[in-house]
Amino acid sequence: MQLISPDRIYASYEVETAHPLADAIAIMAGEQSSGTFLQVPGETLELKERSGARIEAIRETGSAAQPSLPGASAPKAERAPTWRRAETLISWPLGNLGPSLPNLMATVAGNLFELQQFSALRLLDITLPEAFRDAYPGPQFGVAGTRRLTGVEGRPLIGTIVKPSVGLSPAQTATLTQQLVDGGIDFIKDDELQADGPDCPFAERATAVMEVIQRFADRTGKQPMFAFNITGEIDQMLERHDLVASLGGTCVMVSLNSVGLPAFSYLRRHCSLPIHAHRNGWGLFQRSPHIGMSYVAYQKLWRLAGADHMHVNGLKNKFCEADDSVLRSARECATPMFAGEGRGCEVMPVFSSGQTVRQVPATWKGLGSPDLIYAAGGGLVAHPGGVASGVRAMRQAWEAAMAGIDLDEHAKVHPELRQALEKYA
Amino acid sequence: MQLISPDRIYASYEVETAHPLADAIAIMAGEQSSGTFLQVPGETLELKERSGARIEAIRETGSAAQPSLPGASAPKAERAPTWRRAETLISWPLGNLGPSLPNLMATVAGNLFELQQFSALRLLDITLPEAFRDAYPGPQFGVAGTRRLTGVEGRPLIGTIVKPSVGLSPAQTATLTQQLVDGGIDFIKDDELQADGPDCPFAERATAVMEVIQRFADRTGKQPMFAFNITGEIDQMLERHDLVASLGGTCVMVSLNSVGLPAFSYLRRHCSLPIHAHRNGWGLFQRSPHIGMSYVAYQKLWRLAGADHMHVNGLKNKFCEADDSVLRSARECATPMFAGEGRGCEVMPVFSSGQTVRQVPATWKGLGSPDLIYAAGGGLVAHPGGVASGVRAMRQAWEAAMAGIDLDEHAKVHPELRQALEKYA
Repeated sequence: MQLISPDRIYASYEVETAHPLADAIAIMAGEQSSGTFLQVPGETLELKERSGARIEAIRETGSAAQPSLPGASAPKAERAPTWRRAETLISWPLGNLGPSLPNLMATVAGNLFELQQFSALRLLDITLPEAFRDAYPGPQFGVAGTRRLTGVEGRPLIGTIVKPSVGLSPAQTATLTQQLVDGGIDFIKDDELQADGPDCPFAERATAVMEVIQRFADRTGKQPMFAFNITGEIDQMLERHDLVASLGGTCVMVSLNSVGLPAFSYLRRHCSLPIHAHRNGWGLFQRSPHIGMSYVAYQKLWRLAGADHMHVNGLKNKFCEADDSVLRSARECATPMFAGEGRGCEVMPVFSSGQTVRQVPATWKGLGSPDLIYAAGGGLVAHPGGVASGVRAMRQAWEAAMAGIDLDEHAKVHPELRQALEKYA
Repeated sequence: MQLISPDRIYASYEVETAHPLADAIAIMAGEQSSGTFLQVPGETLELKERSGARIEAIRETGSAAQPSLPGASAPKAERAPTWRRAETLISWPLGNLGPSLPNLMATVAGNLFELQQFSALRLLDITLPEAFRDAYPGPQFGVAGTRRLTGVEGRPLIGTIVKPSVGLSPAQTATLTQQLVDGGIDFIKDDELQADGPDCPFAERATAVMEVIQRFADRTGKQPMFAFNITGEIDQMLERHDLVASLGGTCVMVSLNSVGLPAFSYLRRHCSLPIHAHRNGWGLFQRSPHIGMSYVAYQKLWRLAGADHMHVNGLKNKFCEADDSVLRSARECATPMFAGEGRGCEVMPVFSSGQTVRQVPATWKGLGSPDLIYAAGGGLVAHPGGVASGVRAMRQAWEAAMAGIDLDEHAKVHPELRQALEKYA
């Protein structure tokens, strides 16, 4: 996508329609700017020229005999319409909405999803004017800040998720944390289901966990990062953030789709710690090939708002995303959104979901960068030798992959890796 | 759905899977509570009993030869698996998360949408413990408060949307508002695309519009309600709310999917005016029959958080929702969520999208209640006699419908209605 004007917002879509492509897309551009379903008195040519969305490009990509989604209309004259697929690029003047992420959503991802002219409509990408970068802070820590806080350089951060996800008491969570940090883990996160329920209150959990981590850091000079899930109402999130910071913690986690962009931005402006961004609920945007949003577009919104770590799923995950899509998401997180020193909003991708030592070589090969968090829950804590062995096995797998050594070969002299390969066969 | 325990959260789903139904649904319940893709050391039977999600019911509803969504797995032994559809009811202990709407989202609408065991998964309904009602304020005005502020009783509020949606200056918006209030309109709303763009700054627009409305109110003793779109960052929303209140305005509007639940709750606690809740972007949740969320579940979240008016689309709308679905949504808005005086969270449904006088009789017949806002943009302001005639035509259509008089019959002695029927044939 080529940026044509610095004062316009660009969004590309994949669409399917039985109507003439240009007509249907003109309705979409109208609905999302100055038009409605019929001409109204004040809609002058001059107004349309100034405020209307502009169709920049249409490229037909294929067709289908049947509509991909129900409810779409077809021209009345056609008994067996062709449902054409196309990619289109649409632009809006920044003057319509200004550099506002919430209002951007209403413009590029609002009513258009419901238009009956389309039997499929997905947002593929967005390109934003520099004014958005001026209005939003972007990530505060990103890759460099996360490495600085953890002291891990030149290799991925080996991470894990507290499992069982829910059900452990604060004291049990601290005990598990003790095992993990003793085992050499770099990064631990709460499960997204564990926030501040009455059965495991946040303040008690954070206090118990940070006592373990502080003691470990005092002894070893190395402080593993624990991402505490502060998801909640705004006052709760700020209060929990402040508690984590006061306890010497180095990361907070938020469920993006639970909190929304303005609450996230509000937290970011208050925040003194990296924000680990969890995308649970993402399936709503991604599962259907015919409606929704690509992660390429989605992750830009949150990076600009200030996420430091973005979840991208993992290779051969327990969900249903294909490996090439996972790798594309991860690469996108490292691609600058804006030009200029410190303006790119690059973030650290988090590989997670059904990960074990098995996926390490392909992850390294596919990404070609060690700038990631590689998080495994069951794939690490269920190691037959215990969590410490699980951590060691994961580090051994990454050493091998980055040195170009076959895992089975490396396992001959690394018993924890061998056990992991047997367990996660 | 029958509420069984006052300390549990219930959610029902429609699912499709090639795996044995009970097995697949058990994985879903596990993923959303104490389980993960393999057994981990701390997951004791006692922990699962206390914290695990419970499958309350499974009812097979049909099957398909092909998976409805891509990426789903099937048992390896089966070459031509049957993809069974079912409805299931799952429950969670409140102790896992407490009465928190953001964390409820992660629990009932989080990772589960991505599980590869399912080729379709939709959230149908939720039932929440009383603790949620104690923790959230619900609507501040609802139907009664909206009627009190507008002075409209016994019939729907006739509403309109400022059109063209974007492109008018503050002064032009005020001029249009003058025509509308002179014509007898009850309710006007900003388009969801018009918030605080540089081309029509919020403060200027609100000031110009409220001057017109205040002058009209001073003269007539009747104040039409104008829903100003305050969607933006949190500080912006509070500031714009305060401005509207200080100018004597009686309503603010927010794009729900742009702001998210915590920012909405934050606004509600600060707010002294009814909140008009716009659902643009809803197509993302609703367009696919195979992934997403029903409006029955969705609107409960926002009612509890404090919406006063909820958009439900309209009959024969310009989008692609069927009429029975629109009416079900509207009826749901009037159905109490909790028992007890003032605890039901009933809100005013807003009919909108391609509405003209034509849909009035079926809307009245289908809803059986005058407690709604009937909003038309082009269907009112494009009236050949001008906006005042458009308003009169709409009121005439509702008079006729509620009195059981055929529109064409009524039009014989009501020229504005006759013109509208000709225009919107």
